[in-house]
Amino acid sequence: MSPPYSLQQLAELVGGQVIGDGDLEIRGLNGIEYAQPGEITFALSQKQLPLPEHCRASACIVPAGSQDVNIPALHSDQPAVAAAKIHQALLARPFQATGIHPSAVVGAGCTIPEEISIGPLVCLGEGVTLGARVTIHPGAVIGDGVTIGDDTIIHANVTVAHGCSIGQRVILYHGAVIGSDGFGFATDQFGNHYKKPQVGSVRIDDDVEIGANACVDRAAFGVTWIKSGTRIDNLVMVGHNVEVGENSILVAQVGIAGSTTLGRNVVLGAKTGVAGHLRLDDRVMAAAMSGVHNNQPKGAIVGGAPAFEVKSWGRATAAFSRLPETVKEVRRLRKEVEQLRALIASPEQSEDNR
Amino acid sequence: MSPPYSLQQLAELVGGQVIGDGDLEIRGLNGIEYAQPGEITFALSQKQLPLPEHCRASACIVPAGSQDVNIPALHSDQPAVAAAKIHQALLARPFQATGIHPSAVVGAGCTIPEEISIGPLVCLGEGVTLGARVTIHPGAVIGDGVTIGDDTIIHANVTVAHGCSIGQRVILYHGAVIGSDGFGFATDQFGNHYKKPQVGSVRIDDDVEIGANACVDRAAFGVTWIKSGTRIDNLVMVGHNVEVGENSILVAQVGIAGSTTLGRNVVLGAKTGVAGHLRLDDRVMAAAMSGVHNNQPKGAIVGGAPAFEVKSWGRATAAFSRLPETVKEVRRLRKEVEQLRALIASPEQSEDNR
Amino acid sequence: MSPPYSLQQLAELVGGQVIGDGDLEIRGLNGIEYAQPGEITFALSQKQLPLPEHCRASACIVPAGSQDVNIPALHSDQPAVAAAKIHQALLARPFQATGIHPSAVVGAGCTIPEEISIGPLVCLGEGVTLGARVTIHPGAVIGDGVTIGDDTIIHANVTVAHGCSIGQRVILYHGAVIGSDGFGFATDQFGNHYKKPQVGSVRIDDDVEIGANACVDRAAFGVTWIKSGTRIDNLVMVGHNVEVGENSILVAQVGIAGSTTLGRNVVLGAKTGVAGHLRLDDRVMAAAMSGVHNNQPKGAIVGGAPAFEVKSWGRATAAFSRLPETVKEVRRLRKEVEQLRALIASPEQSEDNR
Repeated sequence: MSPPYSLQQLAELVGGQVIGDGDLEIRGLNGIEYAQPGEITFALSQKQLPLPEHCRASACIVPAGSQDVNIPALHSDQPAVAAAKIHQALLARPFQATGIHPSAVVGAGCTIPEEISIGPLVCLGEGVTLGARVTIHPGAVIGDGVTIGDDTIIHANVTVAHGCSIGQRVILYHGAVIGSDGFGFATDQFGNHYKKPQVGSVRIDDDVEIGANACVDRAAFGVTWIKSGTRIDNLVMVGHNVEVGENSILVAQVGIAGSTTLGRNVVLGAKTGVAGHLRLDDRVMAAAMSGVHNNQPKGAIVGGAPAFEVKSWGRATAAFSRLPETVKEVRRLRKEVEQLRALIASPEQSEDNR
Repeated sequence: MSPPYSLQQLAELVGGQVIGDGDLEIRGLNGIEYAQPGEITFALSQKQLPLPEHCRASACIVPAGSQDVNIPALHSDQPAVAAAKIHQALLARPFQATGIHPSAVVGAGCTIPEEISIGPLVCLGEGVTLGARVTIHPGAVIGDGVTIGDDTIIHANVTVAHGCSIGQRVILYHGAVIGSDGFGFATDQFGNHYKKPQVGSVRIDDDVEIGANACVDRAAFGVTWIKSGTRIDNLVMVGHNVEVGENSILVAQVGIAGSTTLGRNVVLGAKTGVAGHLRLDDRVMAAAMSGVHNNQPKGAIVGGAPAFEVKSWGRATAAFSRLPETVKEVRRLRKEVEQLRALIASPEQSEDNR
Repeated sequence: MSPPYSLQQLAELVGGQVIGDGDLEIRGLNGIEYAQPGEITFALSQKQLPLPEHCRASACIVPAGSQDVNIPALHSDQPAVAAAKIHQALLARPFQATGIHPSAVVGAGCTIPEEISIGPLVCLGEGVTLGARVTIHPGAVIGDGVTIGDDTIIHANVTVAHGCSIGQRVILYHGAVIGSDGFGFATDQFGNHYKKPQVGSVRIDDDVEIGANACVDRAAFGVTWIKSGTRIDNLVMVGHNVEVGENSILVAQVGIAGSTTLGRNVVLGAKTGVAGHLRLDDRVMAAAMSGVHNNQPKGAIVGGAPAFEVKSWGRATAAFSRLPETVKEVRRLRKEVEQLRALIASPEQSEDNR
């Protein structure tokens, strides 16, 4: 089955319910302001309903039970997930195997299936193993002995260094670097540094996405490991021997120092830094720009640098903005306490006491 | 007209005034310590005057009305702007059309004028449209359907992904990534993430510069838009659907989350983060390392994370460094208040009250 | 001499002492959990001793004077340095000169010795000078007039822009950009920016390592200078005209603004930002995520943003987390002081005073 789909077919795809004409033919999905006739749009909350008069969409994905939907609707308990799945379905096209572009350079001993798309000026090292329907865009460099699973997409100018292992349905965005050396060295008594060879590798499991110009360093020994379903945004730095659990989210410009382990569904806000050799357990969340210096138990939510419990942090930051006023008040209190003391100690006052 | 220029010609170029020999022939511009005879140098403030004895420059750009200029001078109300314009004029060379290097790969249906310079190992996708005098350096990858305006320079190993639009006189520095997917996904009740297809693009207007290894993500729908004259430094992250107004400045390692809009002449100091879905109006400034979590009105100047008005922030940070002393003083006050209370309540003291 | 080595030979290499069988043949080095028979492992502190029963290593590097070493041991005053040097020695292989790959593009007037390894799809500009045993990996772009010293390794997709100078035994990791333009422009009264041409270059001295996707900008005039032995991690930004002294360490995502000078053995923790035109003297250390806004004397250790002395900063951050409680206490004190004042001023109390 391929696009277009009827509204009813889309509802079945996502376990939703149609209210209106289920036979409507849907050819695309678009935002409320962009949608054209034949396209479905989405309203993720009741507040966006009814749709504006000028909206030209033919149908709308809405939260289950929504009122005031003025066009045919697909009701879903999880409208954002429904919209994502439907959009993917409407965009799905059969894999186009373009083969290996003549300007690509392929090393000896590679295993490359027929259904493949290797673009111009790609370089594969020796002994690379590619799964079915892998796409490698121009300028990407794949090192010796790398394995890449089925349906993975490597975007332009990515580097995957020697020996790394990439799962299925992974997307590596432009300029990402997988498997550069970890930042390891020993320093002698004179302050000279000696490189610790980084002889491990990187393992990226299925369904992971890694953003543009992000870096995942190879392990000193063993592997740096990004587990399945995790999403890593642009310019993120993952240090050597880090483990990132399943379905975690690392927003742009996050940095994780060496040998730290993240559980499942951990969410690190943008620009957060995590120190080395820590354990952040499942579902830990850190606000953007946090600096996490301690282990965190399951479900902990933290903010600040150094980071602590997020509500306390929120109160502390509110108090921080009024800190100069607090300092002044403390000075005033000091003066007043001195005055009171003097008043109590004054001759008229203190006669009884002497 | 081309270099060399007389000092008088340079003065006319920038609306300045010569004091001294206007016929002096100037062949280059250089810093005070580097300038050779035949070169002009610049002193941006009176404090740098008179020039040191060993300065070998033949002339100097100075603030209008400067005293103690010991060599021929070009007086300007805006000496830094004058120096920049003069330096550009002295370095200007006719465009060298080298054509398309034989190792470059050009897709079908591209529109490429004669006056062009496409370096080795460049890859153009299908249907790329290039303006006149475009320069594309080695290793750059230009996706399908990209348009690039006149006189734009794409440096080595840049990626411009499919469908993006780049204006005239733009400079994209080495390794920059334009048009990678926005970081968008929906998460179901089990914590699984579903990619929201990012079907928009990026529009970069005229005279924009984007730094090395910086990233500008494509929009979910519509465009991520960098308006004319804006300068973006290295390793900056601009999220999907962000709009950056004219002549704004994003210093190195800044990050802007999705759907935020910046007005004109906004200045974000290095490493500043801006949350999503905000509006920072014209001329907003944020100190380096700010975390901006709220809309900001025209001309607001903020600092801190979370960011607030910069002078208050300055006072708060000063108070922060003395916070332990303040806490101790509060403890002392507590003790003294207890003592005073006891003193007041003491038998000798309190006889009258009982 | 080449691997394998006897344990005694390794001890002599690092000035250590063997306790046990010095004739043991060692073929590799590995972590305690990974080591196989024939490999040496390392315990950097007495706490890791004795080694676990399941450890299969044939020997262990330990701190001099360690007790409870249950296998043949190499005692060293600096076990981490010894392990790094031994690991390097065990991995050392003769340079493999692969020559210039036919897909590489080499400009006119380059000086390239015979012992060289230039990978596929590399681009050298005009007048590039390479030292002996230089390795350039696929996709790297080396600009016109660049010089690169003996035994240097340039990883995939690196860019070294025109005129930069790279020393001996340097490693530039994947995607690093050396010599992009500094972020310099002048702004006129209307808010328009004029590029200041950046006509300087970058000089990288011997034994420097620069991380993946890191950026070192060229100077406006003169050079941006990274001195020997310095280690720069991934995604670091070094601005124009910065000088970084010998054996300094810049951890991931650090940023240094223009014209700042760092002395020797400076250590900047991850994500630290340093403002422009500063001097950080020898052995200055900044905690991760610091924002350094002032000159720092020799050996200063700072934290926070803005940064100050690290112990004071530690105390201030501890106090910060309790700030809301302090604010409440100040409010309580205010009330109590008012009560005391009232008590003192009350008729019964104050009769004597009137």
